Amino acid sequence: MSEFLIPRMTVIGVGLIGGSFALALKQAGVVGEVVGVGRGVDNLKTALKLGIVDRYTTDPAEGVDDADLVFLATPVLSAGDVVEQIAANLKPGAIVTDGGSVKEAMIDAIEPLLPESVHFVPGHPIAGTEHSGAEAAFATLYRDRRCILTPTEKTDADAVSLVKSLWQKAGSEVVVMDVEKHDRVLAAISHLPHMVAYALVVAGSSYDRYDENILEYSAGGFKDFTRIASSDPTMWRDIALANRDALLEMMNHFETVFAELKEDVSSGDGRKLYDFFLKSKQSRDAIL
Amino acid sequence: MSEFLIPRMTVIGVGLIGGSFALALKQAGVVGEVVGVGRGVDNLKTALKLGIVDRYTTDPAEGVDDADLVFLATPVLSAGDVVEQIAANLKPGAIVTDGGSVKEAMIDAIEPLLPESVHFVPGHPIAGTEHSGAEAAFATLYRDRRCILTPTEKTDADAVSLVKSLWQKAGSEVVVMDVEKHDRVLAAISHLPHMVAYALVVAGSSYDRYDENILEYSAGGFKDFTRIASSDPTMWRDIALANRDALLEMMNHFETVFAELKEDVSSGDGRKLYDFFLKSKQSRDAIL
Repeated sequence: MSEFLIPRMTVIGVGLIGGSFALALKQAGVVGEVVGVGRGVDNLKTALKLGIVDRYTTDPAEGVDDADLVFLATPVLSAGDVVEQIAANLKPGAIVTDGGSVKEAMIDAIEPLLPESVHFVPGHPIAGTEHSGAEAAFATLYRDRRCILTPTEKTDADAVSLVKSLWQKAGSEVVVMDVEKHDRVLAAISHLPHMVAYALVVAGSSYDRYDENILEYSAGGFKDFTRIASSDPTMWRDIALANRDALLEMMNHFETVFAELKEDVSSGDGRKLYDFFLKSKQSRDAIL
Repeated sequence: MSEFLIPRMTVIGVGLIGGSFALALKQAGVVGEVVGVGRGVDNLKTALKLGIVDRYTTDPAEGVDDADLVFLATPVLSAGDVVEQIAANLKPGAIVTDGGSVKEAMIDAIEPLLPESVHFVPGHPIAGTEHSGAEAAFATLYRDRRCILTPTEKTDADAVSLVKSLWQKAGSEVVVMDVEKHDRVLAAISHLPHMVAYALVVAGSSYDRYDENILEYSAGGFKDFTRIASSDPTMWRDIALANRDALLEMMNHFETVFAELKEDVSSGDGRKLYDFFLKSKQSRDAIL
């Protein structure tokens, strides 16, 4: 019997999310061997060089051979394809978990493809940086961050406990949450802000009353505020498609709030404007 | 005759903006004496101790006695009141300039009150930090920043040249711009983003489907993105009131763009979503 809680772990998608999870668990001494799976050989070589994985393969089915834990860190919309390739080769009792930022679509895509003998624990660490790839990974990414697990009716309770303990060993506070709630919370705190930032930049750059690009006048504030509008378009296309319903609910809610504010600006109601800004400042200061 | 380009300068409102301008001009060796005017004696004492001003008074009329240059760094909506108090005591040939972030309202409030013998040069340095008060002032705040001057039909060309040279000595690149354009550009790059950030926080905190505050789940990204929603509510009330027309134009434009994006999310059009996000990313990356 192995001295490790997880003798063999396979990470599919060895980038910031997958690579940092592997490094954190290695550092915590809970994994024996880490197998990396990906499409880009250069990135896998980097991961090997950096000690993130112990070996790698570009073949997902081969990669999950005899794995006790499989961590899916692929883009949300490609997870189904990957699981189709690995399902038949997963060993009975293996745990599959993931780090996708939209959970209902992920579960719908993955759960039906897995054999009954395999345990799927949907998860989402709320952490990240603007960098990507194996080079961006670091062992402390998840320290003092939250990780949300969204077990379904089919999810095995012992598997949830194990995955929970792994995230705790990586330094995270684990919250177990209903799938729908997760997707709505993430729509509010992450997906909506990205849509707003993207729209704000497009509004500025598409304003055509003058011959020059008025965004050229922007100072640090605008640049800081719109940093997230420089995020990867493919990733955000996938998230917008995968979390459509919750995102639309939040976009509608934001439109209502924004229209109220516009009404206060339009009517020149200083008292209402002050109250609105103060309420916002207090809410924001409260989460710091 | 004085050895200084500006023998006596009076700063009304010795905070981040006014204090930093005084420090920059002192360091450049172009001002002789700096007189500070304000309502808060503690802040004026701090300014004296920090060498920002050489003496101070709480009486604006007394403060502008024999001043060659008066820099108004008061909140946008109080500038009119201040100018009413100083107008009769300004010496002929004196130059009055300001740092207000909304120019048309500032000009409308100030210009009619000034005697013909005094030159008003409306200005706006695009610089700032989240701090305020004399303690926050520093000599290099304006270095490598833009300063926009918006002369009116009545503005004396020599006075514009002089104010322009002062901002250049403070390290800024000076742009002369039509008043309306200034107010629209600022609405786009600064005032609209503030409205959006305030609305985004209120949208999150007012979402009441769950018993807990969902903003508690927010990570670094949301906090960075909404930093400007912690700005001073009084200041932003004033700006929203003073730049109402240009701000409403931008809020309407933003609503149109946001509605288009929502339509793409709603229809699940991955191609259009990708194009939208890419266009935004490219526009934003281009101004870095």
